[in-house]
Amino acid sequence: MNKPRVAILMGSKSDLELMEPASKLLDELAIAHEVRIMSAHRTPARTAEYAASGRENGISVFICAAGGAAHLAGVVAAHTTLPVIGVPLARTPLAGEDALLATVQMPRGMPVATVAVDGAYNAALLAGQILALSDQELGGRIKALREATTRRVIADDEALAGRPRQ
Amino acid sequence: MNKPRVAILMGSKSDLELMEPASKLLDELAIAHEVRIMSAHRTPARTAEYAASGRENGISVFICAAGGAAHLAGVVAAHTTLPVIGVPLARTPLAGEDALLATVQMPRGMPVATVAVDGAYNAALLAGQILALSDQELGGRIKALREATTRRVIADDEALAGRPRQ
Amino acid sequence: MNKPRVAILMGSKSDLELMEPASKLLDELAIAHEVRIMSAHRTPARTAEYAASGRENGISVFICAAGGAAHLAGVVAAHTTLPVIGVPLARTPLAGEDALLATVQMPRGMPVATVAVDGAYNAALLAGQILALSDQELGGRIKALREATTRRVIADDEALAGRPRQ
Amino acid sequence: MNKPRVAILMGSKSDLELMEPASKLLDELAIAHEVRIMSAHRTPARTAEYAASGRENGISVFICAAGGAAHLAGVVAAHTTLPVIGVPLARTPLAGEDALLATVQMPRGMPVATVAVDGAYNAALLAGQILALSDQELGGRIKALREATTRRVIADDEALAGRPRQ
Amino acid sequence: MNKPRVAILMGSKSDLELMEPASKLLDELAIAHEVRIMSAHRTPARTAEYAASGRENGISVFICAAGGAAHLAGVVAAHTTLPVIGVPLARTPLAGEDALLATVQMPRGMPVATVAVDGAYNAALLAGQILALSDQELGGRIKALREATTRRVIADDEALAGRPRQ
Amino acid sequence: MNKPRVAILMGSKSDLELMEPASKLLDELAIAHEVRIMSAHRTPARTAEYAASGRENGISVFICAAGGAAHLAGVVAAHTTLPVIGVPLARTPLAGEDALLATVQMPRGMPVATVAVDGAYNAALLAGQILALSDQELGGRIKALREATTRRVIADDEALAGRPRQ
Amino acid sequence: MNKPRVAILMGSKSDLELMEPASKLLDELAIAHEVRIMSAHRTPARTAEYAASGRENGISVFICAAGGAAHLAGVVAAHTTLPVIGVPLARTPLAGEDALLATVQMPRGMPVATVAVDGAYNAALLAGQILALSDQELGGRIKALREATTRRVIADDEALAGRPRQ
Amino acid sequence: MNKPRVAILMGSKSDLELMEPASKLLDELAIAHEVRIMSAHRTPARTAEYAASGRENGISVFICAAGGAAHLAGVVAAHTTLPVIGVPLARTPLAGEDALLATVQMPRGMPVATVAVDGAYNAALLAGQILALSDQELGGRIKALREATTRRVIADDEALAGRPRQ
Repeated sequence: MNKPRVAILMGSKSDLELMEPASKLLDELAIAHEVRIMSAHRTPARTAEYAASGRENGISVFICAAGGAAHLAGVVAAHTTLPVIGVPLARTPLAGEDALLATVQMPRGMPVATVAVDGAYNAALLAGQILALSDQELGGRIKALREATTRRVIADDEALAGRPRQ
Repeated sequence: MNKPRVAILMGSKSDLELMEPASKLLDELAIAHEVRIMSAHRTPARTAEYAASGRENGISVFICAAGGAAHLAGVVAAHTTLPVIGVPLARTPLAGEDALLATVQMPRGMPVATVAVDGAYNAALLAGQILALSDQELGGRIKALREATTRRVIADDEALAGRPRQ
Repeated sequence: MNKPRVAILMGSKSDLELMEPASKLLDELAIAHEVRIMSAHRTPARTAEYAASGRENGISVFICAAGGAAHLAGVVAAHTTLPVIGVPLARTPLAGEDALLATVQMPRGMPVATVAVDGAYNAALLAGQILALSDQELGGRIKALREATTRRVIADDEALAGRPRQ
Repeated sequence: MNKPRVAILMGSKSDLELMEPASKLLDELAIAHEVRIMSAHRTPARTAEYAASGRENGISVFICAAGGAAHLAGVVAAHTTLPVIGVPLARTPLAGEDALLATVQMPRGMPVATVAVDGAYNAALLAGQILALSDQELGGRIKALREATTRRVIADDEALAGRPRQ
Repeated sequence: MNKPRVAILMGSKSDLELMEPASKLLDELAIAHEVRIMSAHRTPARTAEYAASGRENGISVFICAAGGAAHLAGVVAAHTTLPVIGVPLARTPLAGEDALLATVQMPRGMPVATVAVDGAYNAALLAGQILALSDQELGGRIKALREATTRRVIADDEALAGRPRQ
Repeated sequence: MNKPRVAILMGSKSDLELMEPASKLLDELAIAHEVRIMSAHRTPARTAEYAASGRENGISVFICAAGGAAHLAGVVAAHTTLPVIGVPLARTPLAGEDALLATVQMPRGMPVATVAVDGAYNAALLAGQILALSDQELGGRIKALREATTRRVIADDEALAGRPRQ
Repeated sequence: MNKPRVAILMGSKSDLELMEPASKLLDELAIAHEVRIMSAHRTPARTAEYAASGRENGISVFICAAGGAAHLAGVVAAHTTLPVIGVPLARTPLAGEDALLATVQMPRGMPVATVAVDGAYNAALLAGQILALSDQELGGRIKALREATTRRVIADDEALAGRPRQ
Repeated sequence: MNKPRVAILMGSKSDLELMEPASKLLDELAIAHEVRIMSAHRTPARTAEYAASGRENGISVFICAAGGAAHLAGVVAAHTTLPVIGVPLARTPLAGEDALLATVQMPRGMPVATVAVDGAYNAALLAGQILALSDQELGGRIKALREATTRRVIADDEALAGRPRQ
C-alpha cells in the first residue's frame, strides 16, 4: 500500500457522500490518498497539526471541502505552503454562495485553489494535474481520461446525427 | 491601569482606521481593552494561542474584524468558548458581501455574533452590553449613551419642526 | 422552577419547529428560558413592552428569530440595552438573504448579534457563552459540550482511518 | 397654512438631502406635508406614537426612508392602517440591496408600498396618486405633471430628429 | 352587484393560484374587484387600453402580478395616474429576485408600489388601505382585521405560556 | 430535406430535454436545423471547427446552451461572425446566475444575444425573427404565432369575465 | 441619405453618452440608423407606435437601452416581431443587476437579445451581424473589423515578447 | 536566461497593471515566466495553440486573468491538462461577481484553480507552491516568504503593544 499523496479533508462525516466523486477519481487515477474528517472549528488543533505535518508525511496536495462560512481550506493553507484546493459545498439555504466566497476570497499570501460549488470531482482532477507535473505515468492517465471524455461527447453528438430536423 | 477585558483583533494594520470607532467607544465606556493585529492566516498559531489563553488573561469578549474570506472571528471562536463578535469589512470589490457571509454562516457549535458590514462601533457596543450584564455601572453608562442618542434624534426632529410645508 | 434568563422570541408559531434546537440546547445547558410568540409588526406594543421590561423580569439575553424583512431583533434591540441575538430564517423565496440583511445591517447604536440563517442552535449557544461570563458552572457545561463536539469529530475521523485508499 | 396630509419620515438628519426631491415634489403638487426625523431604533416610542396618532392628526400617507436594515417603514406600518410608502436608501457598502429587502419583504398583514432604491421622488408621487383618489384638483396637477414629463421626452426626441445617421 | 374598484391583473392564467389570496381578501373586505389576464407583452394594446380607461370605468387601484422580467405593473403605470401595486412572483430559477428588481426599480415619475415576492395578500390589503382613506366603513373592516391578527398572535403566545422551560 | 440553417448546440446530452422546446418551435416554424452536442471544454477543436465552418455549411444562426461557467456561446462567437444566441441553463446550486453572467457579460467585439435562464423557446423564436428578415413566409408564420399567443391570453381573460367579484 | 435600418432607442437623453459607442460603430459599418429618445413609461403610446410601424418604415433591428427596471426592450418587443436587442445600463445603486434581469428574463414568446451591462458597442455589432446575413458587403466589413481586433491583440502580445522574465 | 515555466495570460493589455503583482512575485521567487496577451475570444486559435503547446514549450502552470464573462482560463484548460489558475478581474459594473462565477463554475473534467477577485499575487504564489513540489529551493524561498509575512504581522502587532487602552 502506498503512502497517501493527497489528503481529502472535510468538516463532517455528512460531507462524505458529496466528496465521494473526488475519492473515486483519485482511485481511478491510482493516486494514493486518504479521506479525513477535520474541522476548522471543531478540531482546530488537530487540523493545524495535520496540515503542518502534511509535507513530512508525504502529502503533496490538500483537498478541503466545507459549506457555509467555509474556513477549512483557509485554515489548512495557513499551516502549510503545499497547494490547497478548496471545494465550496452547497449546504445552507444560501446555496453555496456563502461557501464559495468564504473559500475563494483569501487574503494576499494565502491562496486557495477554488473549484466549483460541489466540485469534488474537479478538485481531485486538479490534484492529479498538479501531481502529474512530476509523474509522467499519471500524466498519461489524465490525458487518457481527457481523451475518453472527448470521445464520449463526440459519440453523444454522433448518436444525434441521424436525426436532422425538418 | 486596568487589565483589558475586550480584545479587538484585526488581520492587518491597514484595518486600524476602520476599527477606530470600536476602540473609541470602548474608551468612552471606560472598558479596558487592547487592540491587536492577529491574522487567521498569517499568524495562525499566535492567534490560536491568544484566543485560547484569552480567558485566563482576563479577556471576556473578542471583537474580530476581517474582510474577504473573513476567517478571523471563526478561528478565534474555534479556540475559545468566550463570546466572539465578528465585524465583516468591505475591503474587496465584492463590497463586504464576502466578509459578511464568511463571518456569519458559522457551523453548528461555533457561533460568531456578527454585526453589520464595517460595523466597528456596534461591535464595541455589543461587547459593552454583554459586559454590563455583570457590571451595573457600565450598564448605566450604556443606558446614558442610548438616552443621548435618543435625545439627539429628538433634537434633530424638533429643529425641523419650525418648518411645516405648504 | 427558575425564572427565565433567556427569552426566545419569534413572530409566528409556525417558526416553533425551526427554533426547537435553541430551546433544546438551553434545556441541555440548564438555562431557564421561555419561548414566546412576539411579532414586531402584529403585536408591536406587546413586543416593545416585553423587551423594555425584560431586564426587570430577569431576562439577560434575547434571541429573536424572523424571516423576510426580519425586524423582530431590531425592534427588541430598540427597547432594551440587553444583548439581542438575531436568527434570520429562510422563509421566503429569497432563501434567507432577506432575513440576514434585515437582521445584521443594523444602524449605529443598535447592534444585533446575528448568527447564521436558520442558526437556532448557535443562537442558544451564544446566549450560553454570554451568560457563562458570570456563571462558572454554566461555563463548565459549555466547555464540556465543546469537548464532546471535538471528540465526536475525532471519532468520526478515526472511524475512517481503517480505510486508506490505493 | 394647511394641516399636513403626508408625513415624510427618516431615521437621521443625514438623510434629508436624499429625501429633498420628495418634499419638493409635494410642494409642487401643493400637498401639505411635514418632514420629521423619526428613528425606528433610536426613538421607537416617539415613532410608534407618531404613527399611531397619524390618522387623528390628519395624516393620510406616510413616507418612510431608511438605509441598511431599514425597519422604519415596517415599524410605522405596525402602528397604523394608513398606507405606508417605503424608500430604501443606499447608505451601506451593500448599495441599497439590504435596505430594499428589509423594506419590501414585509410579512402577511403588514404591507409597505416600496419604491426604488433612493426613490424619494417616486414616493412623493405615489403619495400624491393615492391622495388624488379623493381630490380631483390634485389629480389634475398630477395629470399635468405626467403630460409635462411626456412632452419633455418628446421634445428631447425631436431635438435629435434633425440628426439622421449615414 | 357593485362595479369593481380594484383590478387584479396577471400575465397568465397560471398565476391565478398565486394571486388567489388577493382576491379572497378583497372579498373578505367587501371590495368589489375584478381579476383579469392582461399581459404586458402578449396583449400590450389591450393592457394599455384597460389601464388607460381604468379611471373612467371606476377602477381606483391596480394590482399587477408578474414573474421574471416583470413589466406588467410598469406598463400599467405608464397608462394611468391611478396607484399601481406590483406583486413580484417567484416563477423562474432566479427565485423572484428578477421580478422584484423589474417591478420596484421604476424610473422617476412612474412609481409602482411594490410588495414582497409572492405577496398577493399584502397587495390586496394595501389596496384596501388606500381605498379606506375615503371609505370609513372599509377602514373599520381593515382595523378589525388588524385587531384579529393581533389577537391571534397573542393567543398563540398565551398558548405557549403554560410551558416554562427548566 | 432542407439543409439546416440553425444549429442548436449544447455541451452535454443531459441538456437535450431542457432544449427540446427550441427544437420543437423551429419544427413548428419549419426552420431546418440540427441539434448537436458540442462542448466548449471537452471538444474545443471540434466546436471551433463547427463554428468556423458554419457559414459555408449554410448555418445562419447558432443557439448555444450551457450551465455553470457557460462558455459555449462565447467560444462559438469567437469563431464566427454569424449571430450567436446564448441560453444560460440553471444546472448548478447557483440556479443559473452563474450561467447568465458567464453568457451575457461578453467583452467588446464579441456579442452573444442572451435570452432568459432556461429560455430555450425564446432562443428559437429569436433565431426565427432574425431569419425572417429575409424570409417573408417565415415572417408570416411568426406573426401568426404571435397572434395566436395574443388570442390565447385574450381567451383566458374572457373566460374569467363571467366572474365579477362582490 | 439612406433610410435607417437600425433604431437605437433609449429612455432619456442622459443615456446618449453611454450609447454613443453603438452609434459610432454603426457609422463605421455604414449602417444607416437613427437615435431616438423613447420611454417605455413616459411616452408609451409613441414608443408602441414607433415599434409597431418599424417594419414598414424600413427598420430591421431595434436596439433598446435602459437602466433600473429596464422595460424599454420588452415594450418594443411586445409591438414588433423584428429582432430586439437589449442593453442593460448601470444607472442605479444596484449597478446594472436590476437592468440586466429586467431585460433578459423575458417571458416565453417575447425574446430580447440581451448584451452585457453597458454593452452599447456589442449591441451595434450584433445588429450588424444580423443585417449581414443578407448583406454580403456588410459581412465583409464585419469580418474586417474582427480581423483588425485580432491583429491588435496579436500586436499587443508581440510588443510584450521582447520582455521575457528572469 | 531560463525558459519560462509559468505563463501569465490576459485578454487585453489593459489588464497588465492589475496583473503586475503576479509577475513581480514570480520575479521575486526567481520563477522564469512570460506575460502574454491572449484573448479567449479575439485570438482563440492563437490561444488554443499556445495552451496546447505549453507543455512541450516547458510551461508547467498557466495563470489566466479575465473580467466579465471570463472565459480565458476555461479555454486554456480545454487545450491542456496542465494546471490552470484563474484570476477573475473586477472590470465591469458587476464588480467581479461575473468574472468569479465565469471562472470558477467549470464543468466536470475541466478544473480551473480560481483565486480571489483581482487576486494576481495569490495566483503567482499558488503557481509557485505547485512548482515547489518538485523544486526544493523554490520551496525554501516560498517558506521564507511565508515566514517574512508572519514576522511582519507580528511586528505590526508588537508595534501596537505599547498602547494599552483605559
